[in-house]
Amino acid sequence: MVGDRTKLLVDTTRRLLRRGADLHLRKMVNRAHAADLSVVFHALTPQDQKKLFSMIEDPAAKGHLLSDMDEDALFRTIEDLSPEQLVDILETMPTDDVADLLGRLPHEQTEEILKRMNKKGSAEVEDLLRYGDQTAGGIMVPDFVAVKEDATARQAIESLQKEYKDVEMPFYLYVVDEYDRLVGVSSLRQLVLVPPDTPVREFMTRDVLSVRTDMDQEEVAKIVARYDILAVPVVDENNRLVGIVTVDDVLDIIREEATEDFLKMAGVGEEYVETQSVVRSTRIRLPWLFASCMGGIVAFFVISGFESTLERVAYLAAFIPVIMGMGGNIGIQSSTIVVRGLATGRIHLADLSRVVGKELAVGMILGIVYGCLVGLVAGLALPGWQLAAAVGLGVFSAMTVAALVGSMFPLVFFRISIDPAVATGPFVTTSVDILSVFFYFEIATLFLEL
Amino acid sequence: MVGDRTKLLVDTTRRLLRRGADLHLRKMVNRAHAADLSVVFHALTPQDQKKLFSMIEDPAAKGHLLSDMDEDALFRTIEDLSPEQLVDILETMPTDDVADLLGRLPHEQTEEILKRMNKKGSAEVEDLLRYGDQTAGGIMVPDFVAVKEDATARQAIESLQKEYKDVEMPFYLYVVDEYDRLVGVSSLRQLVLVPPDTPVREFMTRDVLSVRTDMDQEEVAKIVARYDILAVPVVDENNRLVGIVTVDDVLDIIREEATEDFLKMAGVGEEYVETQSVVRSTRIRLPWLFASCMGGIVAFFVISGFESTLERVAYLAAFIPVIMGMGGNIGIQSSTIVVRGLATGRIHLADLSRVVGKELAVGMILGIVYGCLVGLVAGLALPGWQLAAAVGLGVFSAMTVAALVGSMFPLVFFRISIDPAVATGPFVTTSVDILSVFFYFEIATLFLEL
Repeated sequence: MVGDRTKLLVDTTRRLLRRGADLHLRKMVNRAHAADLSVVFHALTPQDQKKLFSMIEDPAAKGHLLSDMDEDALFRTIEDLSPEQLVDILETMPTDDVADLLGRLPHEQTEEILKRMNKKGSAEVEDLLRYGDQTAGGIMVPDFVAVKEDATARQAIESLQKEYKDVEMPFYLYVVDEYDRLVGVSSLRQLVLVPPDTPVREFMTRDVLSVRTDMDQEEVAKIVARYDILAVPVVDENNRLVGIVTVDDVLDIIREEATEDFLKMAGVGEEYVETQSVVRSTRIRLPWLFASCMGGIVAFFVISGFESTLERVAYLAAFIPVIMGMGGNIGIQSSTIVVRGLATGRIHLADLSRVVGKELAVGMILGIVYGCLVGLVAGLALPGWQLAAAVGLGVFSAMTVAALVGSMFPLVFFRISIDPAVATGPFVTTSVDILSVFFYFEIATLFLEL
Repeated sequence: MVGDRTKLLVDTTRRLLRRGADLHLRKMVNRAHAADLSVVFHALTPQDQKKLFSMIEDPAAKGHLLSDMDEDALFRTIEDLSPEQLVDILETMPTDDVADLLGRLPHEQTEEILKRMNKKGSAEVEDLLRYGDQTAGGIMVPDFVAVKEDATARQAIESLQKEYKDVEMPFYLYVVDEYDRLVGVSSLRQLVLVPPDTPVREFMTRDVLSVRTDMDQEEVAKIVARYDILAVPVVDENNRLVGIVTVDDVLDIIREEATEDFLKMAGVGEEYVETQSVVRSTRIRLPWLFASCMGGIVAFFVISGFESTLERVAYLAAFIPVIMGMGGNIGIQSSTIVVRGLATGRIHLADLSRVVGKELAVGMILGIVYGCLVGLVAGLALPGWQLAAAVGLGVFSAMTVAALVGSMFPLVFFRISIDPAVATGPFVTTSVDILSVFFYFEIATLFLEL
């Protein structure tokens, strides 16, 4: 059972660190699963992280930990390593993880490390570094199993046993022609089930799914998820097989992309990593709040324009929070539904009028319900039906406008190829704030003149 | 290459439907990959969906489509099917998908369908239906490969070829003792690589990860992702092997859980599905907005308490949007970082003081920056330093409080076992609104009396 195993490990590690029980700790660290160590590592302070890392003996376990670190911890850890130590660790890691890690270091440092690595490894890493970080080429591994079309099942099994001992996950056997172009695929399972002398050509599947090296990693992840496959072959512009993307990397991408979308929508920026540095975190978040600040200042000028109305009925101001709050919340609901629907492929551009129409209808119905409720409260709390009517209509118009803007903006951004998750957050909240305040005061001025 | 293949398919389908080219359409539909059909299906209107579904000839393709539908479409489609047709389709589907589908139907209908299904299939489905929908038991498949400890590699391969022909993904070979208790695991690969007479006991891995039937699916997904495995065995309370959860289902769970968290944070509710019904959508969203409405009404009473201050300086009201906006936005930033950090396991309860402390520091720095900026605008636009100072301090206090509340609430909810994603949305925004308005008017009253 796994369950609380990592929690226990974290607690034990902390206790041993506190007690300075280095001998015990060293023993435990070197017995633990690399994936568990990674969880423990994240839960420690920088000093303790350093200590833990130095206790690990197996370079492969160190490698696993390195590829799982956030940037702050990575730079701190690498600083303490000699180039020889780092190369020892890198040579135990899968090529895609090495490329990923080196891609995060300064250019000169990368060059120096590549020079020190063994020829084959460094050539493979350099190949991967040529591709964009977030493309199929950047996330693929070159460790696939490929045989020629005329090999038999027995020959294929033999080459598995000899040539491909180091391949991480040999679940598919790719079949290539004389120019290394991908022509088919077979599973390890089929290989075991057919008579040993059958040529691969006869039982391979010809309709093989593949992706191009330049495909975005999010697309690649969608394909692997949609077709329930364990790996997808990556081909170059000539349909030559150059690597595979495996399902374990796809899992990480899906989580990563979801986290990115969360942070983007909250306006914490695409590049945000779990940094422990206050200064860095502040710098990342500052510009995102600027849009909201400008919006607020515009709202100030809008309201200032209604100064005479406000001076006649000061109570009008007391309803600004409820109007902004209701508009803001329904706007977030609508935009989240659309942004997430676009990301998961459940909503398409062709649905624009249907989706916006539905959100508008929902916004109007909810606007009537809450407009009446808030209007009633206003009518009971304060004298004069005009104020109550203005407040009720203000809530209604804010919610209607917010549902419209919240559902339309992401679709429009998507249409003009701007990431809807990035643009939606600040744009929707800011424009909803300004519009709802404007309509509210327009309506109030009208009614109070009655 | 996959790339735009599905987009093309959607466009072609729509064109053929518009032209009424049924013969062409039928041919295309029956040649398409089931996963592609599913994408096409989602993009169509209900009437067209009906037409498309009726054209599919292969019951397995129909089954794939059914398990991928949202609830509205599912109910509409099932209504049109006779019980015999439905059973034919269900018998082509993996057991976990059948259980999942039947779990969404009314109880009597489920009973009737189970009666009509073949014995073995219905018994397996009933087994799965006993477990909670979102637990390891509810998502596992009973199709695993298990051999006794004393079997040889050759015997294991033979039983693969005979007994386990139907197993979906036989990548791991589980080893059990005489009481069917899980004792080890071996990969198909090891099986092929060792000499055929080696007993499984000798090369199996004894340290086998497993999960209990009642473990939450989110935990199961985390484990599969963390240890990079293709399937995890599920055991009952006596450690007897009862099923496996495969990585393809884990991929779906990770996406599903991310979507759920998005919708929960936006206050669209856990149960929200992409429904096309306005009434249903309104009903789901109505209660979530109630919290925000109550918060707005409380803010109204708070501001009403400062009536005399407001009557002296009507311009105070004009800064309510910028103060609420800045507080709200930084509150969302902080709470998103914490909620997502808790969900991905990057933030732990033990980090409470560190995380909240950091967010508070960031909130104060950003509060000083934007407090000065907004204060400056107020000072330039309006006479009197008191108002400018009050507005600047109002922004500062709103942002500080929001960062504190936004980071603390999710951790507190997590501590008392309430899902932070559900509670955070309405709680954080509502309390930030009330608190920031209150502090602003307190500060303003103080300064304007100077």
